[in-house]
Amino acid sequence: MEEIIYHPIGVVENDFWETKDPKKIRNSKSFLVLDPGYLPALQGLERFRHLVVIYHLDRTPGYKERVHPMGDLSIPERGVLATRSPCRPNPLGTTVVEIVAIEGSRIEVTGLDALNGTPILDIKPYEEHFDSPLGLQRERDPGYSPSD
Amino acid sequence: MEEIIYHPIGVVENDFWETKDPKKIRNSKSFLVLDPGYLPALQGLERFRHLVVIYHLDRTPGYKERVHPMGDLSIPERGVLATRSPCRPNPLGTTVVEIVAIEGSRIEVTGLDALNGTPILDIKPYEEHFDSPLGLQRERDPGYSPSD
Repeated sequence: MEEIIYHPIGVVENDFWETKDPKKIRNSKSFLVLDPGYLPALQGLERFRHLVVIYHLDRTPGYKERVHPMGDLSIPERGVLATRSPCRPNPLGTTVVEIVAIEGSRIEVTGLDALNGTPILDIKPYEEHFDSPLGLQRERDPGYSPSD
Repeated sequence: MEEIIYHPIGVVENDFWETKDPKKIRNSKSFLVLDPGYLPALQGLERFRHLVVIYHLDRTPGYKERVHPMGDLSIPERGVLATRSPCRPNPLGTTVVEIVAIEGSRIEVTGLDALNGTPILDIKPYEEHFDSPLGLQRERDPGYSPSD
């Protein structure tokens, strides 16, 4: 199939150079440092609390058909597309993060699961409608509530 | 910045060639038709009900700094990164979908917001932990419940 070419819009800045303790990464602050050229494209972001961040897992060891989920050898191997492993065909990562502060094209967040220097490809406002099973259910049945 | 090159792992198959009625698309069935070479990478997917699908918005009109959200001219223009518009710097789309059936490397889903022929870049099991504000909150405070 054809090639699809993207250009990073920025880079992750935080204190983590390796994935030793993912919980610690997510509970720490990270910065989405976007190219200042994207400043006009960010206008209005302040109205949202959560973002979906899409990034390039640049430190992946490469594609593997099957992996132990979370690198845990005690869990049987599984197809990589049935895990969140970075060893996927296209090493794309996504996490939902919370915005702490926006300073120009530098966005401070918590909850990001990405190492320092990770190239950022896209950020989107989190919308329950597109980004959650609940939103999907409500698309079908607008009156749906989880307590039904 | 550098170029990042991806290769589609498959293509969307459904009855929609244009975005006239997004609600109708999401409530209809779509197929994620993956290259059969990825069959081993799919093993274990049957244990999940929801997927995050990442795709290339190949019919984007191109990058625009500011857009009317949902193309609605009555809503003031906003920076494109503060919307879900396809006119983003890297035209990546994501939706959470529900698995209806898996037949080999052909996955039937509902909830997808993508047109027929859209190149698929990645699929991941939906995990509340990474993919929702609630999971983020629970990462901080494992005992957190929305009713707190």
